[in-house]
Amino acid sequence: MPVRLDRNSADFARQFADFLGAKREVSADIEAATRAIVDDVAARGDAALIEATRKFDRLELDASGLRVTSGEIDAAMKACDAGTLEALAFARDRIELFHRRQLPKDERFTDALGVELGWRWSAIDAVGLYVPGGTAAYPSSVLMNAVPARVAGVARVVMVVPSPDGKLNPLVLAAAHLGGVSEIYRVGGAQAVAALAYGTATIAPVAKIVGPGNAYVAAAKRLVFGKVGIDMIAGPSEVLVIADHTGNAGWIAADLLAQAEHDVNAQSILITDSKALADDVERAVESQLATLPRADIARASWDQFGAIILVKSLEEAVPLANAIAAEHLEIMTSDPEALSAQIRNAGAIFLGPHTPEAIGDYVGGSNHVLPTARSARFSSGLGVLDFMKRTSILKCGPDQLRALGPAAMTLGKAEGLDAHARSVGLRLNLS
Amino acid sequence: MPVRLDRNSADFARQFADFLGAKREVSADIEAATRAIVDDVAARGDAALIEATRKFDRLELDASGLRVTSGEIDAAMKACDAGTLEALAFARDRIELFHRRQLPKDERFTDALGVELGWRWSAIDAVGLYVPGGTAAYPSSVLMNAVPARVAGVARVVMVVPSPDGKLNPLVLAAAHLGGVSEIYRVGGAQAVAALAYGTATIAPVAKIVGPGNAYVAAAKRLVFGKVGIDMIAGPSEVLVIADHTGNAGWIAADLLAQAEHDVNAQSILITDSKALADDVERAVESQLATLPRADIARASWDQFGAIILVKSLEEAVPLANAIAAEHLEIMTSDPEALSAQIRNAGAIFLGPHTPEAIGDYVGGSNHVLPTARSARFSSGLGVLDFMKRTSILKCGPDQLRALGPAAMTLGKAEGLDAHARSVGLRLNLS
Repeated sequence: MPVRLDRNSADFARQFADFLGAKREVSADIEAATRAIVDDVAARGDAALIEATRKFDRLELDASGLRVTSGEIDAAMKACDAGTLEALAFARDRIELFHRRQLPKDERFTDALGVELGWRWSAIDAVGLYVPGGTAAYPSSVLMNAVPARVAGVARVVMVVPSPDGKLNPLVLAAAHLGGVSEIYRVGGAQAVAALAYGTATIAPVAKIVGPGNAYVAAAKRLVFGKVGIDMIAGPSEVLVIADHTGNAGWIAADLLAQAEHDVNAQSILITDSKALADDVERAVESQLATLPRADIARASWDQFGAIILVKSLEEAVPLANAIAAEHLEIMTSDPEALSAQIRNAGAIFLGPHTPEAIGDYVGGSNHVLPTARSARFSSGLGVLDFMKRTSILKCGPDQLRALGPAAMTLGKAEGLDAHARSVGLRLNLS
Repeated sequence: MPVRLDRNSADFARQFADFLGAKREVSADIEAATRAIVDDVAARGDAALIEATRKFDRLELDASGLRVTSGEIDAAMKACDAGTLEALAFARDRIELFHRRQLPKDERFTDALGVELGWRWSAIDAVGLYVPGGTAAYPSSVLMNAVPARVAGVARVVMVVPSPDGKLNPLVLAAAHLGGVSEIYRVGGAQAVAALAYGTATIAPVAKIVGPGNAYVAAAKRLVFGKVGIDMIAGPSEVLVIADHTGNAGWIAADLLAQAEHDVNAQSILITDSKALADDVERAVESQLATLPRADIARASWDQFGAIILVKSLEEAVPLANAIAAEHLEIMTSDPEALSAQIRNAGAIFLGPHTPEAIGDYVGGSNHVLPTARSARFSSGLGVLDFMKRTSILKCGPDQLRALGPAAMTLGKAEGLDAHARSVGLRLNLS
C-alpha cells in the first residue's frame, strides 16, 4: 500500500519532511573498488580493459575485437522488427526537430565605451555515451543522448555498451546507427568509463561522458569528473500526478504504474483534492497490477515508495510539487496551464489528460533524460547545451583601455595583485 | 626557467604530451576527513558547525553570532577606501550589463501534428556562494558569482566566508553588499559547504553551491553533489598568450606574470613564431620580477610551469591552443580576429594588445570564473544559465495522442515496458 498523507492533518509538515527526506537508493561503498578499476585502465589501457571485460562480462576479446563492426551493426538492423525500426526513426526525427530549437546564438556587441564583448558557442569535440547492458538497455535512451550531441555538432560520439556473455541488444545497435553514433565499443562498467576518460590504444579519449549506468558506472563518473565533463548522476525515476475530480482514475493509475514498472526504487505520487479520485486510483492500480507483466517490480515500487497526498485545494498542491521537484509532472485538472504556470521545480511537465508521460519517454520530441531525486530544484534535462561550451570574448582598443584601466588597477592593488595592476599600467604608461 | 619547446623539433609530440599531462596540483587524500566533517554537520547542524569553526578558525561563536549583521556590513562599507568602492560598483554595473544578455528565452511551439512543445527557464530558488578567507579573499570574485545569480533571478543568495581569528575582509563584505547577497555567515571549509547543503537551524539549505575554495571545500562540494548542484571544481589558473613579431615583449611579460602571481601552481604559456620575441619576453619577465611584490610566488610558478613554445607559423599554434584549452587566451598578433575564429577550446579570449587579461578579471563585464586545467574542452565560464534550470513542456490533445501513440506503444513493448504502452493504449481504447 502506498503512503497516504493529508495536507490538513495536524502532523502533515513532519510527515511530508520525512517523505521528502526518505532515501530510495542506498549507495553501497564501492568507491575503492571502482577506483582500482579506473586506475588500472588509466595505467594499462587496453590490457586492463580486456581483463576487466573478461572478469565482469565473461567475454574473451583482444584489442581488435573491442569495436563493434559495421557488419555487426548492419546485421543488427536486419534482425530488428521493421515496425520497431520505423518507430525509432520517427522518434529520432522528432527528437532532432525539438532539439534544433535549443541551438544557442552567439553574441557580439559594442558597449557605450566602445568595448567589444560577447561569446561564442562551440560543440565539444568528442563525447562518450554510456549505455547499460542487460534488461536496462533502452534504445530510446540511446537516441535521447546521441541526437542532441549530433545536433550540437559533436564530431565524434563514442558509445560503450557492455556485452555480457557476448550478447548485444540489436535494437540498441540500431538506435546507435539511427542516432548517428560514430564508434561503438563492447565494454561497460567502470572500465568503460575509464577508457573513455583516459583513452587506450584502441579507444581515443573523449572530453565528456553522458548516459546512465549502475552504481559502479556512477562512481566511476564521479571519479573522472574534472578530467572530463559528466552529465548528472541519474537516480531512480519518479512521476508526480496532480489531478482534480476531472481526472480519469484508470488513466492516472496506468501512468503511476508506468513509472513504477521501471525499478523497485521508482516513485509514483498522486496529489489530489478529490478523496473519491484518490480511492478510485488506488483501486485501479490494484486492478491493473493483476495483468501487468512487470507487476512484481511495479508493486514493490508502489508499496514501498508510492504516495497519495490529499489537499483541500489545488493551490495547496503547488508548494508541495515545488518541494518534490519531480522528474515528471503530469497535470490533469480542469485548467492545467494555470497550475503549470505556478510550478518552479520540475524536469518536465505533461499537460492535460491526453499527454501520458510515455509519450515524452519516446516520441514527444523533448528529452527523457531528466533530473531525478529532487535535482530539478537546480538542474535541467539533457539538451543541446550539454554538448556545447561557451567562450567569452573581450576586445579593447587604446581608448577603451584608458576608460577601464584605472578601475582595474584600483581593484588589482586592493586585492594585493600588483602584477595585475602593472599589466594595465604599463600599457597606459602609468607604471 | 620556463620550459622551451619547439614545434618543429623531432621530439615535440612527446614533449607536448608530457607538458599537457603534467599535474600542477597534487590532491591529497582528504576525502575521509572531509566526509567526517560533512556528516557531522548534516547530523548535528549548528552545534557541529560551531565546533568546527572553533577548531579550524579559532573563533568562538554561538548560533546567534553565525550571521554577519547589517551593522557589520555598514561598518565594512565605511571602512573601505572610497575609490575602491567606486571601482567595485563600476565593475558590478558592467558585469550586470553583460550578464543580462545571457538571460535565456522560453520556447513554446506547435508542430505539424498539433503537438504543443517547449520549455520554460526559471531561477534556482536559493544559491550558496563560498568565498575563501585569508589572502585569497577576492571581492571581485564575490561580484562574479553574486551578480549573475541576481540577474538570473535567484531570490536567496547566501554567502559563507571563513573568519579566521574573527577577521573578515571589509572589501569582501562590501562586494557582497554591492552584489546583492541576501545573507552572510562567518563560516568556511567543509563545514560551511555541509551547512549550505543540508541546512542547520540557523542556515536554511540552498539548492546549489558555487564559488572557489581550498582542497577541503572542493572535496566537500564533490560529496554533496547530487544533494545540491555545484559549479565546476576550480583548479589553478592559467594564461596562454599567442603572439607574433608585432607583440610588445614588456606587455606580454606583464600578462604572464599577472597570471603567475596568483599561485605557485598557476601556469603562463607563450606560443610565438618569433624567436626574437620569445627571447625578449623571457628577459622582460626576469626584469619585471625584480620589482614585483609577489615575486616569490610568480617566480615559482614561472620556473616550474611556465612555457614558451616556438612555432614556424601561427597556423601551427591553433591545434596546440585547442589542446591546451586555456582558461585565458590572449591573442596579440597582426590579425587577432582571424586566429580567434579558429580557436575551439578556451574559457575566454582577449583580443589584441590593449586587452590584458586583468581587464577581464575586474571590469570588462564578462565573467572571470572560467574553466581551468583543460576543462574548457567541455565546460564554460560561469554565467546566468548556471543559476537557472529548464522545465520542458509537452501537451497533446486526443488527435495528437492518436498520431503519436502507436509509435510510443511499439517502443514501450520493444523495451519490455508494457505499462508504458498500456498508459497510451488505455486512452486510445487499444488495450
